Parts: sequence; C-alpha cells; structure tokens
Amino acid sequence: MQKRQNITSLKQLEDAILKGEIKAISKALTLVESNLPEYHNQGIELVNNLTKHKKDSLRIGITGTPGAGKSTFIEALGEYLLKDNHKIGILAIDPSSQKTKGSILGDKTRMENLSQHPKVFIRPTPSSGALGGVAKATRESITILEAAGYDIILVETVGVGQSEISVGAMVDFFLLLMIPGAGDELQGIKRGIMEMADGIAINKAEGENEKKAMLAKNQLENALHLFPLAESGLPTRVMLCSALHKKAIDKVWKGIASHIDKTKKSKYFEHRRTKQNVFWFKEAVKQELENSFFQNEFVKENWKQFEENVANQSLSPFLAAKQIIEQKSK
Amino acid sequence: MQKRQNITSLKQLEDAILKGEIKAISKALTLVESNLPEYHNQGIELVNNLTKHKKDSLRIGITGTPGAGKSTFIEALGEYLLKDNHKIGILAIDPSSQKTKGSILGDKTRMENLSQHPKVFIRPTPSSGALGGVAKATRESITILEAAGYDIILVETVGVGQSEISVGAMVDFFLLLMIPGAGDELQGIKRGIMEMADGIAINKAEGENEKKAMLAKNQLENALHLFPLAESGLPTRVMLCSALHKKAIDKVWKGIASHIDKTKKSKYFEHRRTKQNVFWFKEAVKQELENSFFQNEFVKENWKQFEENVANQSLSPFLAAKQIIEQKSK
Repeated sequence: MQKRQNITSLKQLEDAILKGEIKAISKALTLVESNLPEYHNQGIELVNNLTKHKKDSLRIGITGTPGAGKSTFIEALGEYLLKDNHKIGILAIDPSSQKTKGSILGDKTRMENLSQHPKVFIRPTPSSGALGGVAKATRESITILEAAGYDIILVETVGVGQSEISVGAMVDFFLLLMIPGAGDELQGIKRGIMEMADGIAINKAEGENEKKAMLAKNQLENALHLFPLAESGLPTRVMLCSALHKKAIDKVWKGIASHIDKTKKSKYFEHRRTKQNVFWFKEAVKQELENSFFQNEFVKENWKQFEENVANQSLSPFLAAKQIIEQKSK
Repeated sequence: MQKRQNITSLKQLEDAILKGEIKAISKALTLVESNLPEYHNQGIELVNNLTKHKKDSLRIGITGTPGAGKSTFIEALGEYLLKDNHKIGILAIDPSSQKTKGSILGDKTRMENLSQHPKVFIRPTPSSGALGGVAKATRESITILEAAGYDIILVETVGVGQSEISVGAMVDFFLLLMIPGAGDELQGIKRGIMEMADGIAINKAEGENEKKAMLAKNQLENALHLFPLAESGLPTRVMLCSALHKKAIDKVWKGIASHIDKTKKSKYFEHRRTKQNVFWFKEAVKQELENSFFQNEFVKENWKQFEENVANQSLSPFLAAKQIIEQKSK
C-alpha cells in the first residue's frame, strides 16, 4: 500500500510540475538532492517520467573567477531575457551556499530583481560532499525545471575546477566570464577551463576599463586562435559587456544564440546532448559503484591508512588497490 | 607448492631487474601488461617490491601531433642524454603499435640509433582496449625501468587526448612538441593538452622554417601569458629546436632541467609525485570496480541496449544506471 501511495503522489507531483507549480518543483528538487535513498529513488523515477515530456530549452553554463561579477551578469542577462518572454531557471553550484527555499538567501543582494520575478526560479545546488553527487542533482534539476516550462537554464559555477568539467558536460554552451586587464586576474581560473569555453565574455568593460577590456579581447582572440577548435568546429567568441551598466548584454546573448543556431544547423547540438546523456549514464554507474565501495565499513575504517602507505611509498598504488578490494570482500 | 615457487622466481626476477638484466626487465613488463589475472597479479607484487628500492629518476612525458617529429626528437634527445652517462627508458603509448620484444619493430626506422644502444630500453605499451589498462601498465613499467637503473624515463603519447591526461599524472614534466606556422597545424592537438604542458618545444626550427618558428614562439608565449599558471607556479616555457639537425636539443633539455630543478627546490617535485601515487591508488580502485562490473554477464549482454535507450531518451541516464545495477545483482 505504501508503495502504491508513493506512485500516486509521484504522478500528482509530475502533473503539478508540468503545470509549473512552484511548490511541486521545489519538492521535486528536494527529492533529487536528498541523500536518503528512498527519497532520492523517487526523485530519479520522477525525473525519468519528466524526461518524456520533451520541451525545447537552452542550457547555458556560466563560470568565472570570484570578482568577475557573475551574479550581476546573470541578473542583467536574466532581465534581458525576460523581455523576450522566456522563463528562466537558475542553478548555482556553490559549495558554500546554503540550501534554502528556492533562492539564495545567504546573500540577499544577489540577483535581487530576478529572485522576485514570477518567471524565474533560482536554486543553489547544495554541496553534498562528493562532487559527483552535486553534479548529479544539478543534471536532474535541469530536467525538472525544463519540464516545468523554464526554457532557458543558467547553471552557475564558482570556478573550483572539477565542477566546471561536470557542468561542461551538461550544457549547450559554456560561457567563461572574465574581467579586463588580462593578467594576474586570470590566474584565479583553473587550468583547462579556458579551453573548455564555447565563448568568453569580458565583463566590467565600462568607464576607464573600456580600453583595457578592448585590449584584453584582442589578446584573448589572438591567443585562442592558436588553440585547438572545440568539437563543435566553431571558434571561441570573445565578447565585451558591462553587467553593472547593463551594457552589451544583448550582444553577449546574440553571440550565444548565434553559436547555438550554428550548432543546431550542423546537428552538433543534438549530438552533444546525446553524448552527454550517455556520459551521465556511465558516470552514474561509476558513481554508484564507488558509493557502495566507500560506504563499506572496512573501506571506511582503512582507506586513510592505505592512502598514507601509498603516499609514503611503503605500498605501491596498484598493490594497495588490490589489497583493499580483496580485504573488503572477506 | 605452486605459490611458493612463484614467490621464489619473483624474488629472482627482482634481483635480476635490480642488476639491470634485459631479459628480466622484459619478463616483468610482460607480467604487468598481461591480461591474465595470475600473471598480472605477480607483476603487481613484483612492482610493489621494486618500489622499495628507491632510485633517483626523471619522468618526462612527450606528446605532439602526428608529424611533429616525436620519434626524431626522442632520438636526438636520447643521444644527447647518453653523452651525459644516463640510462634511458622509453615507453610509447601507441594504440596502433604492435607488441614486440622490447622495441618498436613495426616501424623499423623509428629511433634506429637508440634502439641499438645498450643503455637504452624502448618498449611500446600495447593497447589493451580500455585506456585505464594501458595507463596502468605504463605506470608500473616506469617503476620496473627505474629499478633496473634507467634514470631518465621518456613516455611518448600520440595525442589522442585521454592518454595525455593519464600520462600527465605520471610524469615530472610534460613536454608538448609542436611545429612552426602555429595555425592549422595546431588543430590536431586535443583541447586541454596545451594547458597541461609544463613546456613546449617547437620542432623543425630549421632553414626556411626558422623565422616562422620564432614567430610561433612569440605568439605562443604571449598566448600562454594569458593562461593560468600551472600548479607548480612556473610559467610554461616555449623552446625552439631542430631534432632533424640535432640543433638546440641541449637548450630544450636545459629548459626541462631548470624547470625540474626549481620544482625540487620548491618541494613541488615531491608533492607532485606523492599526489600522483595517491591518484593512481584511487584510479586503480575505480578501474577494478568498473572491470568487475563490466565483466558481469548481464552487463555485457545488456549494456548496449541501455545505452541506446539513454541516447534516444526513452530512459533517463540516472534511472538507467539504477536499473542496470539492480538487475545485475539479481
């Protein structure tokens, strides 16, 4: 009976999400984010059912160093897109953010206008320790928001490296936000992120900074020219804007839209999404295998010791792996 | 009795390797490369015992697009290093190479002088399907060669992307080999490789190419200046050489040696090796978990179908993962 009731309420939840009901969306996000297997499994089933209601959407990843003005930029971009009658879902992967009722209250000034808007849904993805977990919930959250009619999904990451790689594998366009004076400021970006970007926006191109921003744009374009093309076959576009003064946000969006348009025509858009689905299938299998391994009592108690022995070279990495797996199964 | 005999012969093998006996080295490499668990396990045990005989060594990864002249470069670098009384071990990760008796016979002209030299050991790492397997054998092969007294290990990869990432995690210095005319030629390099490099050597800086090579060097240096510094805190050095004319090979080596010297002084060298050991421990555990999953009969028979359902979106990635793991355990 218990199971039957769950299924009924999952169906209700599904219907409510398809109607775009905020409470239902929040509940569904809580399910997929849950660490309790019972809730999480319900969330997975729900997401699977929601997948079948295909709706058009664009998924944009946005990253940048602290201080690049990500929140201001997303606020400006969001306001611009709202004029075009979009519904916007915003997911933030922020290890330090507090999980609250659908908006980032820990930092009240962040996206103040957007967070009040009825056509915007903001959700920080809470950090649940393992990165795989975070990214997994984010990937599922995208499906939930899309089913609820949010046709533009912005995924914000904070530049810690690993999460950008995960996010790169779940979006249609990956935007790197930078600031002018392309020197030491860039050092905060992890290696490899630059080459992942489908496009770069140099923010704070305003007032005295404008000249510096132009120079940075030229330098970056020359630099990127030396780098391998992305799989899309398209060059990495460098754009200028001032999120604070809401300047050239339209140009940045047009750059993104033109890129997406080209990938749709070349069929790369579909190809990338299919590849991403298969990628996440494999990732989820691997994650599950690892989770059940690391939840094993013997492993929990002895992992650190093995790691230490490997670090101080009293045990070779491969024998250590063989031993911990063998001893666990005893 | 069988086991006892194995241990005795492993001990003999260990002693022979420490004396630098070629036959013993070849046998040990064959063990770690073996897909038969019995042999592979003996190889792992042997490598673990060899780990304890610490010998100083440098591990250099060398990659580059086809046509960059990797073989010629390694031949020239090898000859240069032999003058300095080094013993050189060369491992090539080449998915297309044939496994032969310690030298790449499939391409007889490759490293002709080096392959004849008594102080050089060349071994192609055979492709055994899964990349993890290849990289694993390479990592173990490094230990075997070091124990046998080879104090400079050159690991050559062919630029297919994934293997560079593995090799980057097992060397002290990662060199990217390029050719002048830094435009379309670079497109053969996979994205992300450029940012992984500790140093770049522009080869074929000879004759008419010399000017182009200088220009490429300047362009690259300017470009790299915009990129994040490596974890070592050192900039990516760009060097020029002509492997064919054995020109400036000494300068490339001095560049590498100076980089290594700085990382030793800053203790980054040791830090990187320790991190790599722990990385390979985790990788080996993950690989083993995946191997036993993918060797399962149910998984073998049904993986493709699940993957297809995920690709055509009739099943969400996460439910698919849950289902295949559940059904496998039944």
